[in-house]
Amino acid sequence: MKDIVIRKLSERGVELVDIAAIVSELQKPYHPGLTPEVSLSTVLAVLDKREVQHTILVGIALDTMAEQGFLEDPLCAIVSEDEPLFGVDEILALGITNVYGTIGLTNFGYLDKVKPGILRLLNNHPTQVHTFLDDLVAGVAAAASARIAHNIFK
Amino acid sequence: MKDIVIRKLSERGVELVDIAAIVSELQKPYHPGLTPEVSLSTVLAVLDKREVQHTILVGIALDTMAEQGFLEDPLCAIVSEDEPLFGVDEILALGITNVYGTIGLTNFGYLDKVKPGILRLLNNHPTQVHTFLDDLVAGVAAAASARIAHNIFK
Amino acid sequence: MKDIVIRKLSERGVELVDIAAIVSELQKPYHPGLTPEVSLSTVLAVLDKREVQHTILVGIALDTMAEQGFLEDPLCAIVSEDEPLFGVDEILALGITNVYGTIGLTNFGYLDKVKPGILRLLNNHPTQVHTFLDDLVAGVAAAASARIAHNIFK
Amino acid sequence: MKDIVIRKLSERGVELVDIAAIVSELQKPYHPGLTPEVSLSTVLAVLDKREVQHTILVGIALDTMAEQGFLEDPLCAIVSEDEPLFGVDEILALGITNVYGTIGLTNFGYLDKVKPGILRLLNNHPTQVHTFLDDLVAGVAAAASARIAHNIFK
Repeated sequence: MKDIVIRKLSERGVELVDIAAIVSELQKPYHPGLTPEVSLSTVLAVLDKREVQHTILVGIALDTMAEQGFLEDPLCAIVSEDEPLFGVDEILALGITNVYGTIGLTNFGYLDKVKPGILRLLNNHPTQVHTFLDDLVAGVAAAASARIAHNIFK
Repeated sequence: MKDIVIRKLSERGVELVDIAAIVSELQKPYHPGLTPEVSLSTVLAVLDKREVQHTILVGIALDTMAEQGFLEDPLCAIVSEDEPLFGVDEILALGITNVYGTIGLTNFGYLDKVKPGILRLLNNHPTQVHTFLDDLVAGVAAAASARIAHNIFK
Repeated sequence: MKDIVIRKLSERGVELVDIAAIVSELQKPYHPGLTPEVSLSTVLAVLDKREVQHTILVGIALDTMAEQGFLEDPLCAIVSEDEPLFGVDEILALGITNVYGTIGLTNFGYLDKVKPGILRLLNNHPTQVHTFLDDLVAGVAAAASARIAHNIFK
Repeated sequence: MKDIVIRKLSERGVELVDIAAIVSELQKPYHPGLTPEVSLSTVLAVLDKREVQHTILVGIALDTMAEQGFLEDPLCAIVSEDEPLFGVDEILALGITNVYGTIGLTNFGYLDKVKPGILRLLNNHPTQVHTFLDDLVAGVAAAASARIAHNIFK
């Protein structure tokens, strides 16, 4: 199933190196020796988790169906426009962020607000709906950062 | 939007009195004077919350699309069979359960395990997919119970 | 630190076999071949997690200080009596319950309501304060059950 | 109890205007007409919630006891140094952040990382322990921001 998740992410415009780049940027100040390879392998480790795979598939399915008009209104409009009071995307992402404990929470919130790199591209996409995907990607990057912290400090 | 949510629930086989019945059963031991009317009005108050409305609409959309084969595999198979390791339904329900604080958590878990009343009917439905809906209904009943506790003890 | 946590649990009246007994009772219907040894080793695996260790130490510290009168009122009274609207114990337990994903949530809520075995003893203790500990133990048992499910179905 | 919470915050160096200042800074870009008075009254509304009051009292009690050496090691050392893998402070704050729904999550994470205003003072205090308090204050500011969003968009 991991391969399917990676393929789906790629179809929606997200390569694993894009996620790894966010992880590197986030963790560089704390771990100057962090290589791109370690960031990438950590992202891959996060994607090994069944819970993460399920959540990404659900989120991408919702984005895609909003985009194709398969969701009924008012939900379709809410998802398509990422209405400010819509919080289901954050809830889903929380299930990813927390797979290495709550220390991932801070990084998730920061990424979701500042939206560096691929997150900004997703958020500003002219035609595609990425209401769920940007939070999911932020969640994966935050979980990967938590995993790096665990491995270094443990 | 509240009316749409109530109509959607009804279309999927859940009337508000079914949810109120669970609330009454759950709270009767602690509040012997609890009337069916109060349980029902508390369920209605939970459904007033924007976050609850959004979450129910998302969950029902996912159930319906799994049922109609609009979700791709492997997600379609996972949702249709409510695979034991699938936890996205519980995550979504958590967003409802917690609207009156974490004291709703215990009741949610209990209802999700024991599955009284309408929850058992949903869970054993011969043809329809209710992977998300049974958790959402348990979440609404748990939140309503928390609201009753807040009103009585506050 | 794991040894310290196990010793602290024991000082507060909780042996690991007590937690393993709850896990066995909970999982027996689904995994008839589950031995007490596997339940116990799964509880030990849960206690390996840093986040679980920290949370247990914090909870026991709060119980102990309420018991010894080191907390100021109104907090001391709230913790000592496990006031119905107090939800901090459930929040802390959530950090344990979720270490193997949200599928632990249902079992946590069920255990926290039904309070089998050692949980009932803790909850009814005539002199000691176990407001946090009973939730923490339920959280460990729920996480262990989730781990068993992951190992069997994966 | 609200008065006790406000007094405790003040004793630990946090005035409500400090929290309101963070809320204003956070929300100004979205709501240019937001006055300091509205930010302050929103902070007061967050502090009306029983769950918020309980959580703040627990967190301040833990900080204070670490400071005074009443916590046993290893917990005392972990809390005093805010060890990077310690996540109990974030879990507690989550109970505050979510009182107006999960849309508060993003702001909490952002504040906890960037640490504007009073958060930086707390975090860098030369002698006092504020391991819990800085997260709690970030949680209150995030919840207040969510409340403002709800009132404006609803």
